[in-house]
Amino acid sequence: MKNYLINDEWKIVEDKFHPEYNKISESVMSLGNGRMGHRANFEEQYSGETLQGNYVAGIYYPDKTRVGWWKNGYPEYFAKVLNAANWLGIDVRINSNVLDLAQADVKAFRRELNMKEGHLTRTVTAGLSSGEEVSIHSQRLLSIVDSATGAIRYTLKANNFSGEITLRPYVDFDVMNEDANYDEKFWDEVGKEVKGGEGYVTAEVRKTFFHVTSGMKFRVLKNGEEIKVEAATEERNKYIANTFTVNVAEGDEITIEKFGVNLSSEYHPKQGLQAKAKELLNGVYAKGFDQMMKEQADAWAVKWETSDIIIEGDVSAQQGIRFNIFQLNQTYTGEDERLNIGPKGFTGEKYGGSTYWDTEAYCVPFYLATAPQDVSRNLLLYRHKHLQKAIENAEKLGFKNGAALYPMVTMNGEECHNEWEITFEEIHRNGAIAFAIYDYIRYTGDQDYLAPYGFEVLLGISRFWAQRVNWSEAKQKYVMLGVTGPNEYENNVNNNFHTNRMAQWTLRYTLEAIDFLKKNHADTYAGLVKKWNLDETAELTKWADIIEKMYFPFDEERGVFLQQDGFLDKDLTPAAQLPAEERPLNKNWSWDRILRSCYIKQADTLQSIFLYENEFDKETIKRHFDFYEPITVHESSLSPCIHTILASTLGKEEKAYEMYLRTARLDIDDYNSDTDEGCHITSMGGTWMAFVMGFGGMRVRDGRVVLNPFITKSWKSYAFRINFRGAWLEIKASQGKVYIENHSATACPLTIYGQDYTLEGNQNLEVEHQSLVTK
Amino acid sequence: MKNYLINDEWKIVEDKFHPEYNKISESVMSLGNGRMGHRANFEEQYSGETLQGNYVAGIYYPDKTRVGWWKNGYPEYFAKVLNAANWLGIDVRINSNVLDLAQADVKAFRRELNMKEGHLTRTVTAGLSSGEEVSIHSQRLLSIVDSATGAIRYTLKANNFSGEITLRPYVDFDVMNEDANYDEKFWDEVGKEVKGGEGYVTAEVRKTFFHVTSGMKFRVLKNGEEIKVEAATEERNKYIANTFTVNVAEGDEITIEKFGVNLSSEYHPKQGLQAKAKELLNGVYAKGFDQMMKEQADAWAVKWETSDIIIEGDVSAQQGIRFNIFQLNQTYTGEDERLNIGPKGFTGEKYGGSTYWDTEAYCVPFYLATAPQDVSRNLLLYRHKHLQKAIENAEKLGFKNGAALYPMVTMNGEECHNEWEITFEEIHRNGAIAFAIYDYIRYTGDQDYLAPYGFEVLLGISRFWAQRVNWSEAKQKYVMLGVTGPNEYENNVNNNFHTNRMAQWTLRYTLEAIDFLKKNHADTYAGLVKKWNLDETAELTKWADIIEKMYFPFDEERGVFLQQDGFLDKDLTPAAQLPAEERPLNKNWSWDRILRSCYIKQADTLQSIFLYENEFDKETIKRHFDFYEPITVHESSLSPCIHTILASTLGKEEKAYEMYLRTARLDIDDYNSDTDEGCHITSMGGTWMAFVMGFGGMRVRDGRVVLNPFITKSWKSYAFRINFRGAWLEIKASQGKVYIENHSATACPLTIYGQDYTLEGNQNLEVEHQSLVTK
Repeated sequence: MKNYLINDEWKIVEDKFHPEYNKISESVMSLGNGRMGHRANFEEQYSGETLQGNYVAGIYYPDKTRVGWWKNGYPEYFAKVLNAANWLGIDVRINSNVLDLAQADVKAFRRELNMKEGHLTRTVTAGLSSGEEVSIHSQRLLSIVDSATGAIRYTLKANNFSGEITLRPYVDFDVMNEDANYDEKFWDEVGKEVKGGEGYVTAEVRKTFFHVTSGMKFRVLKNGEEIKVEAATEERNKYIANTFTVNVAEGDEITIEKFGVNLSSEYHPKQGLQAKAKELLNGVYAKGFDQMMKEQADAWAVKWETSDIIIEGDVSAQQGIRFNIFQLNQTYTGEDERLNIGPKGFTGEKYGGSTYWDTEAYCVPFYLATAPQDVSRNLLLYRHKHLQKAIENAEKLGFKNGAALYPMVTMNGEECHNEWEITFEEIHRNGAIAFAIYDYIRYTGDQDYLAPYGFEVLLGISRFWAQRVNWSEAKQKYVMLGVTGPNEYENNVNNNFHTNRMAQWTLRYTLEAIDFLKKNHADTYAGLVKKWNLDETAELTKWADIIEKMYFPFDEERGVFLQQDGFLDKDLTPAAQLPAEERPLNKNWSWDRILRSCYIKQADTLQSIFLYENEFDKETIKRHFDFYEPITVHESSLSPCIHTILASTLGKEEKAYEMYLRTARLDIDDYNSDTDEGCHITSMGGTWMAFVMGFGGMRVRDGRVVLNPFITKSWKSYAFRINFRGAWLEIKASQGKVYIENHSATACPLTIYGQDYTLEGNQNLEVEHQSLVTK
Repeated sequence: MKNYLINDEWKIVEDKFHPEYNKISESVMSLGNGRMGHRANFEEQYSGETLQGNYVAGIYYPDKTRVGWWKNGYPEYFAKVLNAANWLGIDVRINSNVLDLAQADVKAFRRELNMKEGHLTRTVTAGLSSGEEVSIHSQRLLSIVDSATGAIRYTLKANNFSGEITLRPYVDFDVMNEDANYDEKFWDEVGKEVKGGEGYVTAEVRKTFFHVTSGMKFRVLKNGEEIKVEAATEERNKYIANTFTVNVAEGDEITIEKFGVNLSSEYHPKQGLQAKAKELLNGVYAKGFDQMMKEQADAWAVKWETSDIIIEGDVSAQQGIRFNIFQLNQTYTGEDERLNIGPKGFTGEKYGGSTYWDTEAYCVPFYLATAPQDVSRNLLLYRHKHLQKAIENAEKLGFKNGAALYPMVTMNGEECHNEWEITFEEIHRNGAIAFAIYDYIRYTGDQDYLAPYGFEVLLGISRFWAQRVNWSEAKQKYVMLGVTGPNEYENNVNNNFHTNRMAQWTLRYTLEAIDFLKKNHADTYAGLVKKWNLDETAELTKWADIIEKMYFPFDEERGVFLQQDGFLDKDLTPAAQLPAEERPLNKNWSWDRILRSCYIKQADTLQSIFLYENEFDKETIKRHFDFYEPITVHESSLSPCIHTILASTLGKEEKAYEMYLRTARLDIDDYNSDTDEGCHITSMGGTWMAFVMGFGGMRVRDGRVVLNPFITKSWKSYAFRINFRGAWLEIKASQGKVYIENHSATACPLTIYGQDYTLEGNQNLEVEHQSLVTK
């Protein structure tokens, strides 16, 4: 855990030069706008530790799979979001000496991410070994208004010298992925253009043939006045630059305003891509940097209006939650249903930028409550578009008749992962995808989504479960053998409670969906029966039989469902008794030792308890929490959030607060020593859930917003906002009161501490804050 | 299954040119002499399908591990026996036209491996597209007398032309392994020398720095008379050659006798290695080809004298068993305890030529019964030498106090394999290594091997088992979680019967060994207690407790031990009911489907039943066989042998015969469609076991040779030979009689069909052949 970043309500601040943490800061202060993103790399060249990263949404390369021992069914490739052109770069020379902070005497340094307005600022004072001292002031943004563009204002001040400052702004497409399996380059140049003041490179991705044009256009100012410079142009393979020199006297300031564009063939035909990029770039160049900054701040204000969470009395917690919300909003805007949310967003290469079950299980709830309905609907449609590929994926594994297994990791619907225990066995993901349909409908009331989108996906998944279970003669039950649950510290187990539960639930919900369709969309349903060749007698009867006779491992003595068969054969020593030097286990223990231990990476049985909490009384939930929590080591970023929610439900204030800080500040504090590789974007959805569903106790049931807010003693008050079926609510809890205001004209049915209300449009409501035990 | 090779009692014969099967023939007709080996590649160049393979025992390269997803505990490298210099090569031009059978009209072709005398012959008549027709007659051997050397006699006859024949004999060290993980070359040249008539290349293995000198020396004959040729020398990196041309008239025969040497720094200091190689080569050059062939035949006659098995009335079965015995004797001679038996011997690259548990479980019994005692003792000492590495390997996985886990795959004692479910979990190998000590002592009576070698290994392994089990509160038993048994179609299971059994047995046997040492080697034992810091109170008490309370999954209803926990939850449809097109499963099913099915790759519970057969009555053995055999798919080469033995025990003649043919002719008939990659050398030990322990019913108990021979109706008679504590027995079974002759002066205690005898030196004995049911 690191503490070098400054606590601030709206900013992430590094107030000293920490070259040893530079890659962490680069991750945490990444910028994105849903269409592209980049790490907080320096503009000028830097020979210290850095991971240069620029990413364009949806543009990937099918990197040839690397595998030790091939297994039947493995995919041929792993799709990777590519490191794309660096358009940020501005090489600097002072009197011919290279400005490189790794070589300079850095006298002052401050880098800050402004989350409120969506930009990154850096101020530096650096002395060169040749004696010149300069100050850098740099500001940049990726526009959420003009989403193909970004801009930098980069100012150098000659603090103690007169002479020459030479700048070389460039676009460099000659980049590699650090995680390339076979050290290949993924881009080929298809065109470029450079002249004084601007330049463009268009490159094509090998194998997938996406095109991307990256370009730059700049103006130069001296002491605030635009000047004309004579720029020499330079070009080489996949690279263009301008170089110019300005004479300065001591105290002079030279500023370059560099505007950038990234336009991909996903948004414009290849023919004319470069021309279109130029047009967009000219647009923002004309608009100017100040205007872009202003529009950016305004646009972010709109986003914060609907998604902000305010915590009074705890800057650390405040910063944490805003950081999570900011990153989620930077990563996915929901306008394009071809896109999804990679585990690292635009902050790093790891996990290939592909889609995992994280989206459905941890991100959908955030977008449901804070963004327009279409955003989460697009996340659902993404999977619907991949249904055929999911069916083909299941066929590869021997399934038939339209059974669908969604991939563990995917870019275009095809499986990319190749660890048998995950790829073939971590199939609860299929349940998460089904559950998201339910979750969406429960929240929005948009039951018609079932006809046909939701239903088609549910049908494929139900068919998968019905074939994946088998009848155990010994148990006289349906069992599910050889799976990996959410707790990846177990592999290839039998009857994982969560997976069995997801299977049973999907079958039941699909039957309910059929009832709904029969009643409300009879014609559509008839068409679907035909299209999918659904045998209503045989298939639905089988499903009902499985629902009835599904096996769940249970310990009578403790009254708890067991994570899987044989779980009680393990040594159940609590994790707190493990020697500190052996934590985290995944860095210190061999894999077999982890597997045969009882230690749980992330909520597994508790994940089910959370999803289906209505089916358990509080005593039962407590028994499960008390059994599993002490052996859970939270070595997945997706773990603490679920524990926060359950701890809140059970009134375990301290545990809830501890787990909340861990999830909210995971990246800022680099809890898992891996933030240098990128931020844990998808787990940030879990952080939001932890807050709103944990502290806020928010649920949706029977078309009502259910609230059971509680506040930890560390906080003075907190407030969050949600939209619900046209209503916009602000919920504010202080130590004494809970205040709810409806900022819309739409009435909202509410249940607070078990009491039903209807909060009319533009009205508010105040109730006593109830203590945890009584709620 | 392929049937293109001709049945013959003493030969493997390919009587037509089968370019489509060339890689299979190359494997099957490989030559070896314990120190080196090569595939049956053609001498002249060949542009068709071929796997060029030349190997030198004990010379390996630590190839950088390739892995998809790293796990803690994985090794950094995979040691590979290297493809070494090709010294066989003789390029041929006829009137400047290249002789390449892939381009020629092959009018006659015969390649045959003479197993009786240990050489390879090829006769070919080929027409070139330019019109010339030549005959090739080639013979070659790898000397088992002068073990660093080999020789080729290669004759070309000008059938229909006069003109020039140009020959280029060479030594080419510029070779690669086909299985190189990163397409690297592994050899660097350190020296070479070439002149008319001879040449040498010395190369060094990267990273391990072994040196090998390969050389050639040749003479040329025309129509049987030695002639002098003017040879041009040629050299390039890691390559030397001579080129010369001979004028021929129609009907003339040109012969080259090429002698080769491979000498490694394992057998001579690097300084002077090339000179020593030259000296050895000069020796065989002086000796001449005919003399080498004669000595080779004589030496093989000695090997056959002690190891041959004769089957009358079934050429196919006869050829099969001789092929297995021949290959075992070619691969390992037992003179050097640094060497071991790679799964492919010298016949291919697969499995890296490293040591597996196959050696102890399947090969030791063969060498015990057919070779001098030192041969199997050296196999045991090999593991003793690796004890420290096995302790370090266990430490990597978190074990302490001298616990030893022998590697799954090794060259020098370090683990090379990197699949977690095998590397960390297929730990029954440790039991096989312990059992081989018992097996050796049982056979030879050499109980003093325990002090200290056997005991030290047993102690390390027992300590491992004692730490690897854990106490299950739920079962009130010791359990062993997360293992992979011999049936690799299950991974990461709990309480694999065989593994638990091996653990319990090892602990018990180690306690017995301690008793023996205390009584017979008290001082040595006291020293060992000190050296290994053995806590006789705590450790031995714990072992006794584990022995007493070890858990074994058992089905009361069927009266069978279960392969592992939860086995009865599977669908138990017999393998015979699977669609033919889905077999073999490992080519047609995805890995998860195989894992959750009941299908067994190779004997697992039955392996234990076989090893500990004395502890089960025949009815119990039958129940287990009848339960497991129908769901066993024998997709491991190590499976049919155990089934032959148990089927024989149970009087299941047809099953025994079916399984026997499958193991004996596995490579000749290419049952598993993988012989092109090399032969299944270690499973050949299993074939021998299948014959002698199956049909012969041979065991050793209480210092007696126990025999229960039976003969299948397909055979007229069979005979096999074994040595036992100084006695050399020939056992011959015909349909009516069993005849046993003691070819030595040493008396031998025998038990035949339950009746005890003492067969005095040079005496014989005849008893009635008893039918299966009564034995």
